[in-house]
Amino acid sequence: MNRLSLNQATTRSWSVAEAVDGCARAGITGIGLWREHVAAQGLAESAKLVRDAGLTVTSLCRGGFFTASDPAERAKALADNEKAIAEAATLGTDVLVLVSGGLPAGQSDVDGARQRVVDALGSLAPVAAEHGVRLAIEPLHPMYCSDRCVVSTLDQAVDIASEFPAEQVGVVVDTYHVWWDPGVYRAIERAGRRIASFQVADWVTPLPEGVLLGRAMIGDGCVELRRLREAVDHAGYRGPIEVEIFNQELWDSPGGEVLELMVARYREHVL
Amino acid sequence: MNRLSLNQATTRSWSVAEAVDGCARAGITGIGLWREHVAAQGLAESAKLVRDAGLTVTSLCRGGFFTASDPAERAKALADNEKAIAEAATLGTDVLVLVSGGLPAGQSDVDGARQRVVDALGSLAPVAAEHGVRLAIEPLHPMYCSDRCVVSTLDQAVDIASEFPAEQVGVVVDTYHVWWDPGVYRAIERAGRRIASFQVADWVTPLPEGVLLGRAMIGDGCVELRRLREAVDHAGYRGPIEVEIFNQELWDSPGGEVLELMVARYREHVL
Repeated sequence: MNRLSLNQATTRSWSVAEAVDGCARAGITGIGLWREHVAAQGLAESAKLVRDAGLTVTSLCRGGFFTASDPAERAKALADNEKAIAEAATLGTDVLVLVSGGLPAGQSDVDGARQRVVDALGSLAPVAAEHGVRLAIEPLHPMYCSDRCVVSTLDQAVDIASEFPAEQVGVVVDTYHVWWDPGVYRAIERAGRRIASFQVADWVTPLPEGVLLGRAMIGDGCVELRRLREAVDHAGYRGPIEVEIFNQELWDSPGGEVLELMVARYREHVL
Repeated sequence: MNRLSLNQATTRSWSVAEAVDGCARAGITGIGLWREHVAAQGLAESAKLVRDAGLTVTSLCRGGFFTASDPAERAKALADNEKAIAEAATLGTDVLVLVSGGLPAGQSDVDGARQRVVDALGSLAPVAAEHGVRLAIEPLHPMYCSDRCVVSTLDQAVDIASEFPAEQVGVVVDTYHVWWDPGVYRAIERAGRRIASFQVADWVTPLPEGVLLGRAMIGDGCVELRRLREAVDHAGYRGPIEVEIFNQELWDSPGGEVLELMVARYREHVL
């Protein structure tokens, strides 16, 4: 139970203060924060809230969006990511989750977009190192490749991360994004100590329009959650297990009930 | 132009007779047929229609759906696939496209489902060989893994096909399903003479609910169609190029206009 962490996206209507309070009531000791919630609460106040509650901040979501072809846009993204690194350090977490960005509108050069992700990491890794923060590349499901994230498999994320020191650049394993991959267990083994974060959500169909909010509560879908958890453990991962679920129905439910269900399902399907 | 083939799914409202007529009018020399359309027209009549029009039947879609865990359902699927093989032979095509099937309802054992695909091919490959038909495993985009096709990457399809003689089992490369894959060009090279069919469709977002009918007319999306066509050519593929697009808007348009657009876009983006 001490590995379980609430990723704030699961209780999206809650402010940082409410989420911190909710975790305390539910006996959850870790929280993954989102930048927009932190900004709304205030960075210093958010840091104080989690510290005072004795919570571990297991990640900050999210940096990234490196794929613009326009140099000015790219420079802006880098500056924003430097800010995110500093925020992570202030919040007391050493994991900044990165969603790489998709193809620029009207473009089809996916190799070029992927190269710009590598280039951005080259700029940011030393900055992250200075702040004691690790950049965590998250492969997103291939259905997001064009509009959200050109890093589509765990193997690809590990390939990219491997160009940098392991303490500066790691990867995220999110069950929702990787479960379908025939090579995922080999990729997890290969990722080993590069695994900076492990997130769980379940897969159900039919997917909703836009495919963003179709993730399911753990246990409601077809993902072999425990098998994947055992695989990351076997690869040497000892860190937190964040439950991150984008789901409109959950967002419309009282946060306390969501946490109660989440804890029960975590015991049943992940532990 | 002599490689261009209309996959009947692109003009779904057309019967076989209408599609054959449409191809003749548009100067298209190949057609990929669908079993339900053939059944509605009658098998013998469909065969006669394409023969009389001098059309090449470039594939029959589709067999597959091998993943049931219930033995009786599996036996039924095998029998249906044997029938499909015979239909392909009658229609004069040597390519039967296979969509493997997803996870049985309520199940999560994806490895087991994938093994059942291999087992089914083991039963069917000799039958296909007797009829001079090649089974063509189609990897579908990973977003269909749970409900439609547990074969999710070209590499995986090649791995499976490689367990059988190349003249009995090949693979389909469909641009819509594989474009996102960071390893796709390596996989195409590896597939080589296993490539039994090359299909083109384009990728656009947002995806519609259920993600089945979101495929786009070639040239409307972000897929590097020409690059993929050159890659299959380079791998030794000399066969037809089928345009297969599941798209409600196209289905609601007059078939003749769809074919006219398709020919223009094929010249512009694929040739």
